[in-house]
Amino acid sequence: MTPPEVTPVKRYPATSVDDPPSTPSTALAEEPSVEGDELDCSTHKALAEVIFMGQLFSLMPIAGYNGPDPRDVTMRYRSARFLYGCLTLFLMLSLIVMLMVDTGHAPSIGVQQASSIAYYAIIVFFMVELMLFARSWPQVMGRWYVDELPFRREPYRPPADSLSLRRKVHLIAFGVMFFAFVEDTLNFLSAYRLNELHIRYCPHRSGFWKNFFHREHPYVLRVFPYHPALGWTIELTMRIAKFTWHYVDVFIICLSVGLQRRFVQFNERLERLDGQPQPQAVWRTLRLDFVRLTELVAFVDSRFSKLILFCCANDMFFITVQLFNSFDLKPTTMTTVYFWYSLGFLICRCFLMLFVVSSVSRASERPLETLRRFPSSNWNLDLRRLCDAAATSENALSGKRFFFVRRPLILAMAGTIITYELVLLDQVKQIPDTTKDCTF
Amino acid sequence: MTPPEVTPVKRYPATSVDDPPSTPSTALAEEPSVEGDELDCSTHKALAEVIFMGQLFSLMPIAGYNGPDPRDVTMRYRSARFLYGCLTLFLMLSLIVMLMVDTGHAPSIGVQQASSIAYYAIIVFFMVELMLFARSWPQVMGRWYVDELPFRREPYRPPADSLSLRRKVHLIAFGVMFFAFVEDTLNFLSAYRLNELHIRYCPHRSGFWKNFFHREHPYVLRVFPYHPALGWTIELTMRIAKFTWHYVDVFIICLSVGLQRRFVQFNERLERLDGQPQPQAVWRTLRLDFVRLTELVAFVDSRFSKLILFCCANDMFFITVQLFNSFDLKPTTMTTVYFWYSLGFLICRCFLMLFVVSSVSRASERPLETLRRFPSSNWNLDLRRLCDAAATSENALSGKRFFFVRRPLILAMAGTIITYELVLLDQVKQIPDTTKDCTF
Amino acid sequence: MTPPEVTPVKRYPATSVDDPPSTPSTALAEEPSVEGDELDCSTHKALAEVIFMGQLFSLMPIAGYNGPDPRDVTMRYRSARFLYGCLTLFLMLSLIVMLMVDTGHAPSIGVQQASSIAYYAIIVFFMVELMLFARSWPQVMGRWYVDELPFRREPYRPPADSLSLRRKVHLIAFGVMFFAFVEDTLNFLSAYRLNELHIRYCPHRSGFWKNFFHREHPYVLRVFPYHPALGWTIELTMRIAKFTWHYVDVFIICLSVGLQRRFVQFNERLERLDGQPQPQAVWRTLRLDFVRLTELVAFVDSRFSKLILFCCANDMFFITVQLFNSFDLKPTTMTTVYFWYSLGFLICRCFLMLFVVSSVSRASERPLETLRRFPSSNWNLDLRRLCDAAATSENALSGKRFFFVRRPLILAMAGTIITYELVLLDQVKQIPDTTKDCTF
Amino acid sequence: MTPPEVTPVKRYPATSVDDPPSTPSTALAEEPSVEGDELDCSTHKALAEVIFMGQLFSLMPIAGYNGPDPRDVTMRYRSARFLYGCLTLFLMLSLIVMLMVDTGHAPSIGVQQASSIAYYAIIVFFMVELMLFARSWPQVMGRWYVDELPFRREPYRPPADSLSLRRKVHLIAFGVMFFAFVEDTLNFLSAYRLNELHIRYCPHRSGFWKNFFHREHPYVLRVFPYHPALGWTIELTMRIAKFTWHYVDVFIICLSVGLQRRFVQFNERLERLDGQPQPQAVWRTLRLDFVRLTELVAFVDSRFSKLILFCCANDMFFITVQLFNSFDLKPTTMTTVYFWYSLGFLICRCFLMLFVVSSVSRASERPLETLRRFPSSNWNLDLRRLCDAAATSENALSGKRFFFVRRPLILAMAGTIITYELVLLDQVKQIPDTTKDCTF
Repeated sequence: MTPPEVTPVKRYPATSVDDPPSTPSTALAEEPSVEGDELDCSTHKALAEVIFMGQLFSLMPIAGYNGPDPRDVTMRYRSARFLYGCLTLFLMLSLIVMLMVDTGHAPSIGVQQASSIAYYAIIVFFMVELMLFARSWPQVMGRWYVDELPFRREPYRPPADSLSLRRKVHLIAFGVMFFAFVEDTLNFLSAYRLNELHIRYCPHRSGFWKNFFHREHPYVLRVFPYHPALGWTIELTMRIAKFTWHYVDVFIICLSVGLQRRFVQFNERLERLDGQPQPQAVWRTLRLDFVRLTELVAFVDSRFSKLILFCCANDMFFITVQLFNSFDLKPTTMTTVYFWYSLGFLICRCFLMLFVVSSVSRASERPLETLRRFPSSNWNLDLRRLCDAAATSENALSGKRFFFVRRPLILAMAGTIITYELVLLDQVKQIPDTTKDCTF
Repeated sequence: MTPPEVTPVKRYPATSVDDPPSTPSTALAEEPSVEGDELDCSTHKALAEVIFMGQLFSLMPIAGYNGPDPRDVTMRYRSARFLYGCLTLFLMLSLIVMLMVDTGHAPSIGVQQASSIAYYAIIVFFMVELMLFARSWPQVMGRWYVDELPFRREPYRPPADSLSLRRKVHLIAFGVMFFAFVEDTLNFLSAYRLNELHIRYCPHRSGFWKNFFHREHPYVLRVFPYHPALGWTIELTMRIAKFTWHYVDVFIICLSVGLQRRFVQFNERLERLDGQPQPQAVWRTLRLDFVRLTELVAFVDSRFSKLILFCCANDMFFITVQLFNSFDLKPTTMTTVYFWYSLGFLICRCFLMLFVVSSVSRASERPLETLRRFPSSNWNLDLRRLCDAAATSENALSGKRFFFVRRPLILAMAGTIITYELVLLDQVKQIPDTTKDCTF
Repeated sequence: MTPPEVTPVKRYPATSVDDPPSTPSTALAEEPSVEGDELDCSTHKALAEVIFMGQLFSLMPIAGYNGPDPRDVTMRYRSARFLYGCLTLFLMLSLIVMLMVDTGHAPSIGVQQASSIAYYAIIVFFMVELMLFARSWPQVMGRWYVDELPFRREPYRPPADSLSLRRKVHLIAFGVMFFAFVEDTLNFLSAYRLNELHIRYCPHRSGFWKNFFHREHPYVLRVFPYHPALGWTIELTMRIAKFTWHYVDVFIICLSVGLQRRFVQFNERLERLDGQPQPQAVWRTLRLDFVRLTELVAFVDSRFSKLILFCCANDMFFITVQLFNSFDLKPTTMTTVYFWYSLGFLICRCFLMLFVVSSVSRASERPLETLRRFPSSNWNLDLRRLCDAAATSENALSGKRFFFVRRPLILAMAGTIITYELVLLDQVKQIPDTTKDCTF
Repeated sequence: MTPPEVTPVKRYPATSVDDPPSTPSTALAEEPSVEGDELDCSTHKALAEVIFMGQLFSLMPIAGYNGPDPRDVTMRYRSARFLYGCLTLFLMLSLIVMLMVDTGHAPSIGVQQASSIAYYAIIVFFMVELMLFARSWPQVMGRWYVDELPFRREPYRPPADSLSLRRKVHLIAFGVMFFAFVEDTLNFLSAYRLNELHIRYCPHRSGFWKNFFHREHPYVLRVFPYHPALGWTIELTMRIAKFTWHYVDVFIICLSVGLQRRFVQFNERLERLDGQPQPQAVWRTLRLDFVRLTELVAFVDSRFSKLILFCCANDMFFITVQLFNSFDLKPTTMTTVYFWYSLGFLICRCFLMLFVVSSVSRASERPLETLRRFPSSNWNLDLRRLCDAAATSENALSGKRFFFVRRPLILAMAGTIITYELVLLDQVKQIPDTTKDCTF
């Protein structure tokens, strides 16, 4: 006699995106005592420091993300974090409006102007998008928390030969952010040296910093008169905003690490079973766990695929533009160093992001390979359905389903960028050296 | 004992395209009493206003499309609608012949001439194609009506959180047509301003409207002497014909909305079953309903894929040509406004069309995901075959099967257009400004 | 009790390509009496006139292809046909050697020279390849004959609403060849007019035909002195050889029509079963018939895929070269007419070939769709294996498996050609007008 | 009653890459007596001469590879082979550093400089990679040896109509290396002739070989003064190192031949079964053998896919660069001969490598086709699982899973190279003729 089966829907919230947030909480309430023997930390917990890092740059204005329970996360509209976020967003919006007005007055629009506007626009888009995520964070993380609960206890174990989820997430996030910080420093140094060069060449400007600000943000000075406070505010806002650019990549990487780990754990449990016959109840649980993971991937994809789409488009666009710019001579050594570091960092960050996201898909293919090793004497309906589910489900994050992030995508993107560059080779013209331009 | 099974072929007409039109009528006759408790309107009914809109522009000359029964739709060859359609078609054919003769005499053919001829030719093709559809409309809609009957009553329900089919179709169709109307107005205003500019520059022409007509349709004036009535007839015909261009996109969108909705309903019913065991008869019905939808998609595709193929080719060609033209300076502000509005509208309309058509494919993938959640204790042959059918059937509209309209297609088309533009960058030359050309 | 099953291997020759030719003969010997009630002619018989047509152009030097039995086909090395073939081949080889020597002496090699050599080389390759096919014809057709035997009698019937296989093959083959003949005539007329123009411009040449021959085959006249007999021999050989080019396309089309028809018959039989329950023996026969077709496609592909690969490469190369040449002005009207007719015919012939070959793949997908309609009450192992076979088998001809000829391939090839043309737009230079060149 | 089943994991080492090397040895110990009746040599044995050939070029510094047991293979750090490898590696590293320093001082970097550095860098990468493989050789080959053991005895037989594994590997490896040797000789002759030409043109250099060395390795002479011993050492090192380039292709080909052969044997055994019913135990063994092969491919891929990725990238890059260079005129006939031979050899070697690697994938598809012929009366769970495994497993080597090496990949790569060349046509500029440059 087969053991009575509890339908999966009873045990965890349905796939429907519109789940009332009470369901996860009920699930949590039912299983408070088991928290003690957990072997792996939750993705919710692993992300805490990453969210804190985002808050430094005015992103993700939520509170309570340090607690063990994702239900406690809230977004308060009267908190300092929210105000900080709104202020940065407002300043960026003002800057983008001024830039667009300024560009609209120019006789023609080149690649430089277009990519500047695209750069600001994508940052503002990311800021708004992350603020919206902040609002739905308790729901998303509540669902995730419940779905990954079984994977945090026996018989699942943390992946062998691997860092803990928390340390892995920290290593990647802080690593990338450190290199981003170096890039920002080099950017400042390069601007500083270019300004020095410019002042030496055109002696008409009184102050060093006024000239600096003039060179970096001319469109602001056409609206407001120069004041050091204004200058430094804008400069600081810009540098804070720039981190949004890097942060979105880091954010997507961290989410993917969380998903990929669960598939690895699932496969390692299968391998520990070592092809031995198992009671049908074990196969049922395994099947339900796999379906649960599949649905979690689909749920995360439904929430984050827009971010992935814009993040990939953004990375591809700027790699193409930067490679196109690489044919120009740079006026100072510092600018050359900054330029190549920046390009290398951009390519590496983009590659890392795509590689980690595609690892989710790769990790989800392994169970099918492992399942083939199980003997036919132990064959049963749940094992068969598990095989079918593993063979037919699409466990990959996507860019709004326009593309699925799997390994071959990386090659396709690289090939597209190379083709674009070769085609654009004909268009390479010297960008006028602004250090020799004394008209402003 | 399994319940006796009625083979699906008995219950609805076979897939064969050459079905005698009597079969749908029989099916209708068998089930007249259930009409009262219908929950969702038929695609036939939802399309009524869209067809009426087409008739304003001389397309789809059918009568009786407002009735509840698609059998009553007829195409009468002696109706005013048919004559209106034939007249427009005849005028367009005359215009295209005059244009081709005119182009044949020119020393060389440029992109402008080629795209003008392509533009007229595709409109004439669409007009003929829609007239042929009008003739087979009772057959197509009869089949569709019967196939979607089960989805209009319990236990299926209209999709939650969604407009009614009729309102959705109206919203999309009238929305797109409104923007098309704005485009047409801008086009007229731009031509008006260019004419003004031209007259100011070349004072040899007596009348404003004669000059206007000269500029817009020079190839007609080489055959016929100018007369205001002739001018306004041609101008009106052209503007009516132009709506065919937009109408075909709208028409394909509306058909796809009808198909996609049924898959959504099917999936929502599966989700309402909530993983609970069901008697085998329920699974059989579900399986047959899914197969029915699959065959409906194949049937619709066999009838409309030629239209989809030419519609996509048309959209891609004109987006490429317009983007290529975007490098030119425009002589008046109104022309600039019109150009960018027109290009933006073209891209949005094309994207909307592809997105909605690809939603059919997306909606048909969901049931497989939902089915994985059902417990193995309720496993039976029909459930298994339903899973197999969901996994292996290609529920997507296609362009004559040269391509299937799924999400990644949109990315592929966008990438192709970008590549073509980058390659063509070298070929950008100034198109001679016709407002300064006083030779005619 | 299930009926005793005869393994398929006993009933028809195994897939192994190295089958002794005796196996088909045995099979034929076993079933001589059933020939009377056949409903459809064999592919062997349908191809007879196509082979005869090829023999007019010195190809396929086999005898006995008119008989009912493919075993009687032989290739005699002492027949007039074989000598004719060898003579043409020898002349072509001489020409290609003279052309290559001539080209090797030229200071540089342009697109014209390269494409001339490619043109001759591919014709020689096709001639040799078809001679090799002629040798293995009894084997190939013997296998095909046996495999398609069941499809020529009840319960299979010829496809409804379709020409008989023989008439369809004739229609396509003679149709294409008629247009090829028109192309050849235009080519001669164009050369004639160009020669007239040249003589009028450069009066130094004594005879019209000597000049004609000089213009067409200069590389021959550098080796041999001019003599009318030589001139006309070469000219005739060239025109005969040119038909090889068209013949290979026609040949591949005819083979594909034969294959596609069997899948259509299979599906139509399934549709005639109308979803009614069938005894298991019927399903077994159906399954074995489908597997038999699958293996026939694989067998034909293993023999002809090299031809398909070179045929597609050849068509793509010459479409690209001709499109590239289309930017040149032609010196006479007849040349213009010939050029555009030739280009249009080339594109249509290539499209027709790809379309018909891809129909094999399309026709083999339909049974899976039809099978979904059969009720589960009649479910059995053979039906299931038939579904699996229909879902997983690759019933498509290929180009040495580098590509499979399916519908999307046509789009991919068209897209590639367009990309190449756009990229080559920059390289368009005027080809020197040889009618004004009086140096020889 | 079904026979008791031994789970596969007991019979051969698990897929885990981190298997202790003792497992293969145990397996070997268990089956020493059956070695006598083996029908096919092991891949380990077939590769012995290929490894010896590599050691001539300082690669794969392992000992004991001639013995029957892969466990005896060791890599000793104090052996002459290892020292030889380290010495070559050190010299190459010194050369690459000198080259990079030299290039860094140049005013601009062209395609020639970039491809020189890429050429050296990839050779050093391959050297290091092969040294790392040498270290893990006993593990890799131990696993391989155990997995292929069943295929070396009855009921498997060596493929019919085929060379023995050893002879096939030798034929390919020594064949390619012979052509590589011819290429190297032509390269030397070409450099010799260019040097002659240069000396005749610029009479300022005293010695022939000093000038030769100057021309070939100018960056070395900027660091060290000229000495014949130094010159010849560098020259010899360079020529030894160049063989690494060819050796990696050969190495990958040989591994693939070993894998592909096993799938061919598997399929031929299936075909010998001739559709006859078999006891379930036979099907179980067949299924486990297939799964074993699948896992072996996955294992080999996990170890060698990085090498395949870089090898393909390397081949594609140099084919593109060489084709780009083919538009230049060469100063001497010998240089022309060398250039075209080198390009042809490069393309053929790359094609051969891709073709052989893709044969693994092709050979693994055949069993599914053969299995369809088996009668349903013999249907059982293991046969079904074998069908499923054959249909869903990805038996193809890959480039780090960015791409799978299957037949269509070859077409895709060829298409990409052609596109790149056409795009680069515009950039063709004369490379300055160094034989006329007397500045050094």
